[in-house]
Amino acid sequence: MSLLIKGGTVVTHADTYRADVLCVDGKIHAIGTDLDVPSGCETIDASDQLVMPGGIDPHTHMQLPFMGTVASEDFYTGTAAALAGGTTSIIDFVIPQPGQSLLEAFETWQGWAEKAATDFAFHVAITWWDDSVREEMGTLVHEHGVNSFKHFMAYKGAIMATDDILVESFSRCLELGAVPTVHAENGELVYHMQQKLLAQGLTGPEAHPLSRPPQVEGEAASRAIRIASTLGAPIYLVHVSTKDAVDEIAYARQQGHPVYGECLAGHLLIDDSVYQDTDWGRAAAHVMSPPFRPKGHQEALWHGLQSGNLQTTATDHCCFCADQKAAGKDDFTKIPNGTAGVEDRLAVLWDEGVNTGKLSPQEFVALTSTNTAKIFNLYPRKGAIQVGADADIVVWDPNGTRTISAKTHHQNVDFNIFEGKTVRGIARHTVSHGKWVWRDGDLRAERGAGRYLERPAYPGVFELLAKRAELNAPMAVKR
Amino acid sequence: MSLLIKGGTVVTHADTYRADVLCVDGKIHAIGTDLDVPSGCETIDASDQLVMPGGIDPHTHMQLPFMGTVASEDFYTGTAAALAGGTTSIIDFVIPQPGQSLLEAFETWQGWAEKAATDFAFHVAITWWDDSVREEMGTLVHEHGVNSFKHFMAYKGAIMATDDILVESFSRCLELGAVPTVHAENGELVYHMQQKLLAQGLTGPEAHPLSRPPQVEGEAASRAIRIASTLGAPIYLVHVSTKDAVDEIAYARQQGHPVYGECLAGHLLIDDSVYQDTDWGRAAAHVMSPPFRPKGHQEALWHGLQSGNLQTTATDHCCFCADQKAAGKDDFTKIPNGTAGVEDRLAVLWDEGVNTGKLSPQEFVALTSTNTAKIFNLYPRKGAIQVGADADIVVWDPNGTRTISAKTHHQNVDFNIFEGKTVRGIARHTVSHGKWVWRDGDLRAERGAGRYLERPAYPGVFELLAKRAELNAPMAVKR
Amino acid sequence: MSLLIKGGTVVTHADTYRADVLCVDGKIHAIGTDLDVPSGCETIDASDQLVMPGGIDPHTHMQLPFMGTVASEDFYTGTAAALAGGTTSIIDFVIPQPGQSLLEAFETWQGWAEKAATDFAFHVAITWWDDSVREEMGTLVHEHGVNSFKHFMAYKGAIMATDDILVESFSRCLELGAVPTVHAENGELVYHMQQKLLAQGLTGPEAHPLSRPPQVEGEAASRAIRIASTLGAPIYLVHVSTKDAVDEIAYARQQGHPVYGECLAGHLLIDDSVYQDTDWGRAAAHVMSPPFRPKGHQEALWHGLQSGNLQTTATDHCCFCADQKAAGKDDFTKIPNGTAGVEDRLAVLWDEGVNTGKLSPQEFVALTSTNTAKIFNLYPRKGAIQVGADADIVVWDPNGTRTISAKTHHQNVDFNIFEGKTVRGIARHTVSHGKWVWRDGDLRAERGAGRYLERPAYPGVFELLAKRAELNAPMAVKR
Amino acid sequence: MSLLIKGGTVVTHADTYRADVLCVDGKIHAIGTDLDVPSGCETIDASDQLVMPGGIDPHTHMQLPFMGTVASEDFYTGTAAALAGGTTSIIDFVIPQPGQSLLEAFETWQGWAEKAATDFAFHVAITWWDDSVREEMGTLVHEHGVNSFKHFMAYKGAIMATDDILVESFSRCLELGAVPTVHAENGELVYHMQQKLLAQGLTGPEAHPLSRPPQVEGEAASRAIRIASTLGAPIYLVHVSTKDAVDEIAYARQQGHPVYGECLAGHLLIDDSVYQDTDWGRAAAHVMSPPFRPKGHQEALWHGLQSGNLQTTATDHCCFCADQKAAGKDDFTKIPNGTAGVEDRLAVLWDEGVNTGKLSPQEFVALTSTNTAKIFNLYPRKGAIQVGADADIVVWDPNGTRTISAKTHHQNVDFNIFEGKTVRGIARHTVSHGKWVWRDGDLRAERGAGRYLERPAYPGVFELLAKRAELNAPMAVKR
Repeated sequence: MSLLIKGGTVVTHADTYRADVLCVDGKIHAIGTDLDVPSGCETIDASDQLVMPGGIDPHTHMQLPFMGTVASEDFYTGTAAALAGGTTSIIDFVIPQPGQSLLEAFETWQGWAEKAATDFAFHVAITWWDDSVREEMGTLVHEHGVNSFKHFMAYKGAIMATDDILVESFSRCLELGAVPTVHAENGELVYHMQQKLLAQGLTGPEAHPLSRPPQVEGEAASRAIRIASTLGAPIYLVHVSTKDAVDEIAYARQQGHPVYGECLAGHLLIDDSVYQDTDWGRAAAHVMSPPFRPKGHQEALWHGLQSGNLQTTATDHCCFCADQKAAGKDDFTKIPNGTAGVEDRLAVLWDEGVNTGKLSPQEFVALTSTNTAKIFNLYPRKGAIQVGADADIVVWDPNGTRTISAKTHHQNVDFNIFEGKTVRGIARHTVSHGKWVWRDGDLRAERGAGRYLERPAYPGVFELLAKRAELNAPMAVKR
Repeated sequence: MSLLIKGGTVVTHADTYRADVLCVDGKIHAIGTDLDVPSGCETIDASDQLVMPGGIDPHTHMQLPFMGTVASEDFYTGTAAALAGGTTSIIDFVIPQPGQSLLEAFETWQGWAEKAATDFAFHVAITWWDDSVREEMGTLVHEHGVNSFKHFMAYKGAIMATDDILVESFSRCLELGAVPTVHAENGELVYHMQQKLLAQGLTGPEAHPLSRPPQVEGEAASRAIRIASTLGAPIYLVHVSTKDAVDEIAYARQQGHPVYGECLAGHLLIDDSVYQDTDWGRAAAHVMSPPFRPKGHQEALWHGLQSGNLQTTATDHCCFCADQKAAGKDDFTKIPNGTAGVEDRLAVLWDEGVNTGKLSPQEFVALTSTNTAKIFNLYPRKGAIQVGADADIVVWDPNGTRTISAKTHHQNVDFNIFEGKTVRGIARHTVSHGKWVWRDGDLRAERGAGRYLERPAYPGVFELLAKRAELNAPMAVKR
Repeated sequence: MSLLIKGGTVVTHADTYRADVLCVDGKIHAIGTDLDVPSGCETIDASDQLVMPGGIDPHTHMQLPFMGTVASEDFYTGTAAALAGGTTSIIDFVIPQPGQSLLEAFETWQGWAEKAATDFAFHVAITWWDDSVREEMGTLVHEHGVNSFKHFMAYKGAIMATDDILVESFSRCLELGAVPTVHAENGELVYHMQQKLLAQGLTGPEAHPLSRPPQVEGEAASRAIRIASTLGAPIYLVHVSTKDAVDEIAYARQQGHPVYGECLAGHLLIDDSVYQDTDWGRAAAHVMSPPFRPKGHQEALWHGLQSGNLQTTATDHCCFCADQKAAGKDDFTKIPNGTAGVEDRLAVLWDEGVNTGKLSPQEFVALTSTNTAKIFNLYPRKGAIQVGADADIVVWDPNGTRTISAKTHHQNVDFNIFEGKTVRGIARHTVSHGKWVWRDGDLRAERGAGRYLERPAYPGVFELLAKRAELNAPMAVKR
Repeated sequence: MSLLIKGGTVVTHADTYRADVLCVDGKIHAIGTDLDVPSGCETIDASDQLVMPGGIDPHTHMQLPFMGTVASEDFYTGTAAALAGGTTSIIDFVIPQPGQSLLEAFETWQGWAEKAATDFAFHVAITWWDDSVREEMGTLVHEHGVNSFKHFMAYKGAIMATDDILVESFSRCLELGAVPTVHAENGELVYHMQQKLLAQGLTGPEAHPLSRPPQVEGEAASRAIRIASTLGAPIYLVHVSTKDAVDEIAYARQQGHPVYGECLAGHLLIDDSVYQDTDWGRAAAHVMSPPFRPKGHQEALWHGLQSGNLQTTATDHCCFCADQKAAGKDDFTKIPNGTAGVEDRLAVLWDEGVNTGKLSPQEFVALTSTNTAKIFNLYPRKGAIQVGADADIVVWDPNGTRTISAKTHHQNVDFNIFEGKTVRGIARHTVSHGKWVWRDGDLRAERGAGRYLERPAYPGVFELLAKRAELNAPMAVKR
């Protein structure tokens, strides 16, 4: 089975050049201008198009059981929508209940994900701690290809990881060569503010951002970073949404610490005025955590991407329909948290980033695909246009336009936070495992075609950290 | 009973001028150049001397039961030594055991303090939480003149306050008009590092600073500040010892938050090379928390004082003799934490601060006395040379010299961290309650002469915060 | 001649207390609750009022010849308006033409100022350089009571001081004990942007802020500060209007440098949307330099005042009427730069600062009066409620209200940038030299009653700098 | 002519993989594991070696006429030494005398460089300004392949560019698609401090760093960056040596400005204690500008490289022998400024960077070669291991060791600032244009083999800037 992408301009995080790309048996087989083309090879015309590594969304929650309901998007519908937008891999989250075996939860999620149309991997959340958790982290790393663990610093009374867990788990990650990641919001403060606002009679969605103001994220970012740096571990912050957190990351990076930050397409574009919408449903549809932020924070996030202080983009794709959101009609703390975006991320980032001169096309590739692959040790299998890499490719039309709408999107949810926005720059075609799955508007996502991605332990940064630890090993004073 | 301080230059935090100061019945009765002097009035010649408010040390631990022993300095010996150095008031700490009634502990400390030779007040530590603690905080504020509560973010397994306690207690402080204060070190990290170092065979005092590196303080500073700012409360950080924490304070202050920082005479002068001393006893004698810091941090602290980001100076005076320190001979975590200094603070701060041009004499007064009085609502009773203020006065000789030594100091401890340092600028005379208690080397401290200082709730900053809260009160959206 | 201010609450930068204030022969004669009142003493009832040092405006330009016209406000009308707003002293600017003798210019301004109703002093601008300038700076300091010199880093081709002049003049200031001050905008950039905008056909007032964006001020602030700190001199930045410059000041202060920043009432309240006004006259009326700034900068200025990074407030009072502004009808660079404010500064700062909880009343006093007096060595003659101080006092009614309008203000100009704003907190009465000159709406400013204020050289900071210089004196290596 | 580098591990700025590299006719012809090898092909065994793009030194001064003498290293000897250290290209500087035609100077340098053994390019300095300079900049860009211009903000009275020149020239650069670069030191301050120190009798090399303290560089960095950002131009700072300048760069980058910083191998390793050497010759041998810096700045530079705030490394290779340095025996301002390093840069950066875990091998490649190629539009001809790229390759032995010494180095100078340092990690072989010019200690540099590198205008960043400018184009208000 072979496919030739012909006449395009290859754009990677490092290079831009004219070349054809030949995919054979799911891999990139050859790149060049004068390729021997197998007989029966299908061809995509990529004239005037850019040929880029397919997007990797490092933060999705397909069919997540959460807040008394289950996300409306399942692993098939969600990954199909991803393909329509040029994203060819996702990293989702296994979230064990406190007390639950990590392996058991991992199996459950694997079962759900069998129907995925794209490749997928899992971060595993550490929601409680005892020796069995420590053990199972090892098993997951050694036997199941997990190399990252997630810690929710929010959601007190549910899945929140307190400092003792953070310290234990980050240390364990360091031993195992796995990357600790955090949802950085101070859960005690959020809980306190929620109770206070409800007591004041503020029950609507407008109370949501008030219950988790920017410094709540800045605090947790500072804490996670400093715990990691004290232990000598790397740290990855998911969905950085505030100037406060960007400042913390910049401060730590300027001291040489390997700190990574992810930001969401939604946080880059949308501000907290949405919670003032007089239509409850529209306001509630925007309830996610961290919330959309006051004006000014968006600019700080863009600057974070431009300066290299933030390295990845994601969506936190987690869909709840209007009837699900309605659970919080009388109490904003009961509105299921989450918004969609896996289909739209690349387009809005191109439109607002590349078209405006904030980002170069190469930076776009780095931020939507390659950096994620490198941080989570999927590179160069993913995130690369290289011979031998998986043939996950988006053929990007920088001049194509599309008006985003819930009416036309492929996501299984009845709302779109980018509703009505017309973007210039779209996924014209998407290739997954060397197969043409999105052809100029024709979606051919295949249920179950996606495979689980085993991610090896010890991404490159661990070698640096090991050298530093050796040089700084403490020494006893001779007395 | 009256006393005339004659011919000196009065220096306050705000002004410098030539005047005589007449003290009658424990109060400053008159200030001027042409005073009617009562008959029988004793006179101090203050020619070529500076007449300043007596020092207030906002951070001492007299006769503290701690780590299996009791600090060697009791409320009498310690306050007597204070007087010899020009300090006329202290704020000590009531530290209830977890589970213990705050009031009960308060009574205990009051009993111990009856013998004090200077006036004294108490911060009360919040080491645990339930409704009775909340209640007793109110009783302490309303009936016992306490307006500040202390939170140890370190000392896991003992008196550490976790985030839930911080949030509850800071909120309660805000209601009561009391200032929350914190010892900012991340206790989970300290505990983890201690165990790790011991496991690596690092049992000596040199492991002490390694178990609590600067970012451990930076983290906790960031956390306490952001919890307070989210709640709309002021916050006071005791013994700020790192650039990391100063940076956090500066960042928050430049965003308009009322954040206060205290720094210790020891941290200003001494770096962490002391823990490399090949004499175990000398190294152990320097064990305190936070530890002395790598070179560079001292300069950041001075700059904090100069720029106004740090407002007070203290000592954390907490004395343990060599035989007490020996408890940690084989395990640095068992070395009782603490160093002396209540006698030396003013002199070293003058010598290293004023003599070097870092600080003006007025800034010296602010940093050793007035700012503390203002923050903790003792001003202008204390910290002022004003008619009606308590006659607690130091007559300062800017040209007098003294070589600091444990052999000659008045502190009841066998070690002095400033040993051998010759300072220029000394307390020539000290007046407490209008009485001459230190006369050019002759110490006449009177056991029990000190009185408990009731401190009214709602220092001035609370009025500002109330206005801000009112303006920013959340509003429901009409739907 | 005596005047008793009775029953008020005295507020200084340091203290708040109930007391009567007795003024005799232009000085504060006594402060207390039980004063002997001379016969024939006039009385002001200050019940429910605050008694504060009269405001000092450190930045005015009365009857300035500028851009081909002369400011409409002369020394009499301007100082009279000042009194109506509670300001009792101004520091104006002598601005010699390049090549002109400083002394000659000084005499000219002295002549103009003879009619002033308040006390006044002069900063003298250094607009060119040769040995005679150096000499005359000395004469001004030694014989004429000048202790500050101003440097315009903008206005290329006119009065701009290039780096060579800054270095020479700051050095000379350091020798003389005078404070160098700067208008911090990069004049080369401004000139270039002006030409570019005009060439693009942008001739209206909306081009004014585009010709001097925030980084133009940040640059010059950084430059002036670093030149001063390299030389070991203090530095005072007039009309700081941007976050960029506040950041520079904070950065330098956190390294221990004595850097002072002034900000204008206008910059605190007004943003750059005024230049989009479709009425040319209203837009042009706001043309001043630095211009009003994009939203966000105002908050940074308030935070600067709150954190202590900015120390003084002023107005840059420089009035041009509509017919004068019209000179730039076809070319924004020809619109005379300047706005009014000397009458309104205290009221808007109280209303937006104190009423909102941003500033305490004591901080208000420091920021409107005392800090200026200290920095420019007028304290405690000015800026203080102290026995012996000049009896320049404002009796402030925190509950009084006033709606600001050009129709009712006392300033001799046809526009008010605060038009329509209702403030709570007004100057109820103003006392100048112990005389009641503003009585609840009745203005009795006396032409020529103001006196020139000789300011001694070597304000306090110079003593600190001298000590530092001595300690850091370079030493030759012995070879 | 062909050469096969066999069995090595290719390391680029983006990837690491095992492959053979075949060079034919000066270009990289093929990369792979199963290559067809031409007959007669020479082979390098790269087992256990890393195959990396040859180093590019973006900052050298071969045979520079400077300060009354001429640098001892000519274009042949210097480039030969470069090859021995793994550097295969240099960018040198054409420095016209004020008043001299740029083209004339360019021709002169071209003549000198004919003997170069490596490829070379030229930055051209703008040392004066008139319309002919503006014209010739265009000619250089359009006809001579120059895409960067250098501005010395120091060297008053000689080649210093004042602000008016900076503004004009940066604007012109922006039009032409050329990168403005600066030597960031405030020349007025340097001149002033030099005169002052000489007047104080400080004539030795120890006065050199005192005459240009860190804030002198911080100032100029801030100025150049803000001029560029106001104009919408990129900016490249050569030899960033201070925390002050790194802070400026980080501040600007975190606001989205395209600011680049270069740092020198010497500044990363050596501190200012060298100027205290009691041997005049050794102290003088270290005289360069900016000078070596106080301890602490080195760490800030490393952190700059790690965080991405600094992008390139260089040497400012400019050699003067002891007899030349002696010209400043009695006056440090007459010591010819400069040190060597072109041979040692890669080795010391590897040893102190990669071996310590500060940098990854890929980052090393980026910092020594690729980033320079990208910024100055030489990529992927240079700085890449790609088919079609110039076959400039270093075969790096990460375990090889060498002790650096003037006795054994190939640089034509009698001093080495890294004297005695043993590095692990050395250039085992160097290939230039597909020819083996350094073979395990055998240097076969060929006089005149180097070619001039034409660099196209408009490196990628200009496209971003053009989009931004378009979006932010000012608009007139309709009135």
